[in-house]
Amino acid sequence: MAGNTIGQQFRVTTFGESHGLALGCIIDGCPPGLELTEADMQHDLDRRRPGTSKYTTQRREPDEVKILSGVFEGQTTGTSIGLLIENTDQRSKDYSNIKDLFRPGHADYTYHQKYGIRDYRGGGRSSARETAMRVAAGAVAKKYLKQAYGVEVRAYLSQMGDVKIDKVDWEQVEQNAFFCPDADKVEAFDELIRKLKKEGDSIGAKLTVVANNVPVGLGEPVFDRLDADIAHSLMSINAVKGVEIGDGFEVVEQRGSEHRDAMTPEGFKSNHAGGILGGISSGQDIVAHIALKPTSSITVPGETITRQGDTAEVITKGRHDPCVGIRAVPIAEAMLAITLMDHLLRHRGQNADVMTETPKI
Amino acid sequence: MAGNTIGQQFRVTTFGESHGLALGCIIDGCPPGLELTEADMQHDLDRRRPGTSKYTTQRREPDEVKILSGVFEGQTTGTSIGLLIENTDQRSKDYSNIKDLFRPGHADYTYHQKYGIRDYRGGGRSSARETAMRVAAGAVAKKYLKQAYGVEVRAYLSQMGDVKIDKVDWEQVEQNAFFCPDADKVEAFDELIRKLKKEGDSIGAKLTVVANNVPVGLGEPVFDRLDADIAHSLMSINAVKGVEIGDGFEVVEQRGSEHRDAMTPEGFKSNHAGGILGGISSGQDIVAHIALKPTSSITVPGETITRQGDTAEVITKGRHDPCVGIRAVPIAEAMLAITLMDHLLRHRGQNADVMTETPKI
Amino acid sequence: MAGNTIGQQFRVTTFGESHGLALGCIIDGCPPGLELTEADMQHDLDRRRPGTSKYTTQRREPDEVKILSGVFEGQTTGTSIGLLIENTDQRSKDYSNIKDLFRPGHADYTYHQKYGIRDYRGGGRSSARETAMRVAAGAVAKKYLKQAYGVEVRAYLSQMGDVKIDKVDWEQVEQNAFFCPDADKVEAFDELIRKLKKEGDSIGAKLTVVANNVPVGLGEPVFDRLDADIAHSLMSINAVKGVEIGDGFEVVEQRGSEHRDAMTPEGFKSNHAGGILGGISSGQDIVAHIALKPTSSITVPGETITRQGDTAEVITKGRHDPCVGIRAVPIAEAMLAITLMDHLLRHRGQNADVMTETPKI
Amino acid sequence: MAGNTIGQQFRVTTFGESHGLALGCIIDGCPPGLELTEADMQHDLDRRRPGTSKYTTQRREPDEVKILSGVFEGQTTGTSIGLLIENTDQRSKDYSNIKDLFRPGHADYTYHQKYGIRDYRGGGRSSARETAMRVAAGAVAKKYLKQAYGVEVRAYLSQMGDVKIDKVDWEQVEQNAFFCPDADKVEAFDELIRKLKKEGDSIGAKLTVVANNVPVGLGEPVFDRLDADIAHSLMSINAVKGVEIGDGFEVVEQRGSEHRDAMTPEGFKSNHAGGILGGISSGQDIVAHIALKPTSSITVPGETITRQGDTAEVITKGRHDPCVGIRAVPIAEAMLAITLMDHLLRHRGQNADVMTETPKI
Repeated sequence: MAGNTIGQQFRVTTFGESHGLALGCIIDGCPPGLELTEADMQHDLDRRRPGTSKYTTQRREPDEVKILSGVFEGQTTGTSIGLLIENTDQRSKDYSNIKDLFRPGHADYTYHQKYGIRDYRGGGRSSARETAMRVAAGAVAKKYLKQAYGVEVRAYLSQMGDVKIDKVDWEQVEQNAFFCPDADKVEAFDELIRKLKKEGDSIGAKLTVVANNVPVGLGEPVFDRLDADIAHSLMSINAVKGVEIGDGFEVVEQRGSEHRDAMTPEGFKSNHAGGILGGISSGQDIVAHIALKPTSSITVPGETITRQGDTAEVITKGRHDPCVGIRAVPIAEAMLAITLMDHLLRHRGQNADVMTETPKI
Repeated sequence: MAGNTIGQQFRVTTFGESHGLALGCIIDGCPPGLELTEADMQHDLDRRRPGTSKYTTQRREPDEVKILSGVFEGQTTGTSIGLLIENTDQRSKDYSNIKDLFRPGHADYTYHQKYGIRDYRGGGRSSARETAMRVAAGAVAKKYLKQAYGVEVRAYLSQMGDVKIDKVDWEQVEQNAFFCPDADKVEAFDELIRKLKKEGDSIGAKLTVVANNVPVGLGEPVFDRLDADIAHSLMSINAVKGVEIGDGFEVVEQRGSEHRDAMTPEGFKSNHAGGILGGISSGQDIVAHIALKPTSSITVPGETITRQGDTAEVITKGRHDPCVGIRAVPIAEAMLAITLMDHLLRHRGQNADVMTETPKI
Repeated sequence: MAGNTIGQQFRVTTFGESHGLALGCIIDGCPPGLELTEADMQHDLDRRRPGTSKYTTQRREPDEVKILSGVFEGQTTGTSIGLLIENTDQRSKDYSNIKDLFRPGHADYTYHQKYGIRDYRGGGRSSARETAMRVAAGAVAKKYLKQAYGVEVRAYLSQMGDVKIDKVDWEQVEQNAFFCPDADKVEAFDELIRKLKKEGDSIGAKLTVVANNVPVGLGEPVFDRLDADIAHSLMSINAVKGVEIGDGFEVVEQRGSEHRDAMTPEGFKSNHAGGILGGISSGQDIVAHIALKPTSSITVPGETITRQGDTAEVITKGRHDPCVGIRAVPIAEAMLAITLMDHLLRHRGQNADVMTETPKI
Repeated sequence: MAGNTIGQQFRVTTFGESHGLALGCIIDGCPPGLELTEADMQHDLDRRRPGTSKYTTQRREPDEVKILSGVFEGQTTGTSIGLLIENTDQRSKDYSNIKDLFRPGHADYTYHQKYGIRDYRGGGRSSARETAMRVAAGAVAKKYLKQAYGVEVRAYLSQMGDVKIDKVDWEQVEQNAFFCPDADKVEAFDELIRKLKKEGDSIGAKLTVVANNVPVGLGEPVFDRLDADIAHSLMSINAVKGVEIGDGFEVVEQRGSEHRDAMTPEGFKSNHAGGILGGISSGQDIVAHIALKPTSSITVPGETITRQGDTAEVITKGRHDPCVGIRAVPIAEAMLAITLMDHLLRHRGQNADVMTETPKI
């Protein structure tokens, strides 16, 4: 399988380069009867969109999504949904200087080696711009999950550099430009970003994604475990270098007597597992963490080589986020939602005889 | 897609329960002309096998694999390879006491909820016993990668509880029962295991998997990035709760100027990326880390419920590892090898016009 | 995807050569809770089995299938089902004379060219022997379809050479060795076979496969239409050269006013469509026809070349059917059942909100 | 897998309804370095386009395709190719009268039953209008196959009603509006169409598709045989009810001694097999035939029911072809090319060690 599709039953296929004519997406397998308009996607697209705050890149794209098919009289029809976002602010000239350079930390070198040709304008297909379509598709999944099963998929910034949050207040997340759930840390984040801008450098980040009200039973052992597929979908986001489910790497130092979540007639007593046991959702909150690397698009000079193999220095000018992790919040939500949606349909297919939960659509 | 298959072009499908008649596997898509005998798989099977040292479970299975098809006169024919391991040491009686209990931290509850029925003998399909077939299939991938491209896939234990290794000496890895690359830490690991056995408890572990000589160009953006597929395959291993590529979660606190790997005419100057840029292998070593939770099969009593929803206490007697992470070393190697192999075939299919590397088979 | 798997949600993967150690199969995605024993498969295996009548090859294999996993206390558990049939009557010596010959009409030449190596014993993987596992897997699908939805999948021989049946009496089909539904034609078929045996030649055949009580709604436009997937699964049977749905090639000469099936409040008035409209099952009987070529394994000498490219003559001695089409009856049923089963699970996954039909398991 | 994707390595995913805003397609897995412009697709789109002759529907759409991604500086980059055709001539009002009717012979009833909702404007997704995107994608496959391996994929009309062609002169095919290779039959076809128009009726057709210079070795036994996948892709075309490979249904009456194609040092002496042996291409011409039913969109009144289950009469006014088979010629070519392309990439992936043929791109 070529790589631009994710999911088996709820399938999302995308196209589009950073500075091409448009980005597009086909959602295949969406259940019929879901009320859907562009507005349902626009909210998350706006959350991801560059240029919305002083903390993120100043590239200004309206990112207006159009539904081209699969919706009739306001409802999904069960056929494939075509989505399109035209690129309006392309400014290709900004990138001509890197035509023959492999920017360190970027995909320039590997795309060139793999394909023998690369669209160097803004990173082409390797640019995070493609994630706009993930967010649009994720919004469809989020809406269905919410309406049919009451599932809510949300994320927040839990760390940037050495600044960590201390508490999670979901109300706060949309109140600040960092998707920070801890009001007391907003200023520290703000300070860090300003410092980085001045220095022309960037920083990594850690995000947390949570889904609640997830039906028990999602996940297909042994290879397509729910956690394995979540790891796949989250690691497929640009710049992600690590994925944890539940306690993640903390389990290395845990004892079995401490890690396992006790069960009582009232439910689980803790959630070290992050809502997944044996690769199948347990009905508890699904909790995942991801680590995003600092972007390499910085003005601090970097050492590299040209296509011809000569030494070169690179400075990435232009409009770039000092912390690409921030804008990844809606992307992480989208990817988790897409994966849950896919597993929901797969589970319903095989286990219709067993399922007691009925969708509310 | 049901969940017992991994890979697109090099496909591994498995079956088998802990206490069923046999485990089996079909490898589909293996290139023809590879010399293959049972001995090629047996070595890794023995490394994974329980009962080989005092540190691991005392269940004794010869784990003898048989090739049933796909090999003719000592060579693979390109058709599907059938593998079988008969279960000889089943002792089902050990497990009758957990028939109506959901062991905390295990898949008992989720399997029951998903399927309405579960094979409770030793965890059935959710038992790590199924990983024997992954190891067998992985050995085939390892052999091809080695012969055709010189790729080597190896792993080691990098941490158990709070004991971390300080250095990596590949020579040491096979010299001790822990796959520990740091001879100075073997005693500390030994002590920790003995302590846990006495206490009837277990501990988590961290492993590192490395592949070298990997051809540039493996990985299919944007969803089937090499790192995303590695995350999927490693997270699909029982007990894994976290996956890192390269610097992993350390990137959260890194600066862009520090993280990006400088390129020179002689090659990369560092490998923070872990050998993957933009989801495509860069030719550097591929480096991944995984976190494995402490097993819940311990003699420390745990709180749980019965199928009927009543409170119960569970003590898992029987033959269990205090640290399941140790035996996961050959499993992690196998999963990485399977994923690389799959991406190699996918890459060759699309990019035959561009590829310069020729296989040596 | 390598080629030894069929289906997306109900997935069947097989291995095994004509003269290897064993044939095997993994069924992935079978719903849990289905009562299943070897006997459920043995009946159809016996119908397909060589050596059961004087009309088919005299190779005698008991073809005893063993369930190795996925069934617990007599019921499917929802995990992968491993099946095995050991080859007991291998007689490899029969085939040594064709080691360096490409038999005309056989896969010898193409396997050799594709893989550079071939298992020449009895055709290896290209032998129709592999269809035994299709029949076993199909029996599982048939049983589920029957129990859960009352679907019945049956086939019969409708033509051999120029002898065509005139009527369809389902009662007759299992009463004769030809799966012939027209008692008046049995003698003509018998005569034809005896004539061919004497001449050392073979003949083609046409089969008809029918499924009734199929739920409305199976099939996924636009590429995975039910008829397209049926064409795929039936054409994948050895020796099949043509597939028709409903009126098939007769539509070429039909008028639109004649072909379209009128609808009334009591249902459709005819079934030219063969139970599929727009790629989706209509609730009418699904009707398909297939054409099977005459086997090339005959004693009439044939012109061919050796691996070295020299002219040669080939005579296929041994135990071969004059009409391989006869034994394909249970195979065709199996393939249709597997495809319907797969589409049933896919349909249930996406359209659970719409479906009114509930399975009876 | 939802149904709007075809292919594994060369993957085509489409969206779009007859009267929606646009049709679209994503081609994933196209090799890099292929020179590609809209003009490469436009030629085949024009051949398929309605309104080009008096024999086909008078709906006039320019069917202008736009490349939105995956091509840079005139060459494919190996990333996903987005294609778009805007619907300009929608005239939805024509169809309001069938909003609550199930047209006999159409997909109205089955779509309604499957999804609970249907886009009734011109058949929505079930309209043959979606095949425009198949033709566009097929043109890409055709161009690559031609340039890299010299493969040519062509089709012609071999029968309409009871008028059959007697000879095949490829030069003639593009000289008349019927894609008829026999100049002597053009008038008979013309007469038949005029008669049908007068009567308001329609007629079926038979097409023949041929690919030459196909490399030996394409096809993946046992389920994804080349012939099985061709059957799938051709049967997925609207209105197709039968598929034949090589001699097709004629084999039913053939003898083995007659059917098998003798081999000589100079090559095969005949091509009854249609270029495929054991599911793998033999290097001979690949030959397939398809039967297309007469369209049900005719002015002869038909008996049917409403959504409420009441009896009704339907007359399909509007712009419709008396023989939809004619315009299917470029569609059949496209589908065969897509399938060959997919198998080429799959074959190259697994058998790179064996292949001697090198692509010329």
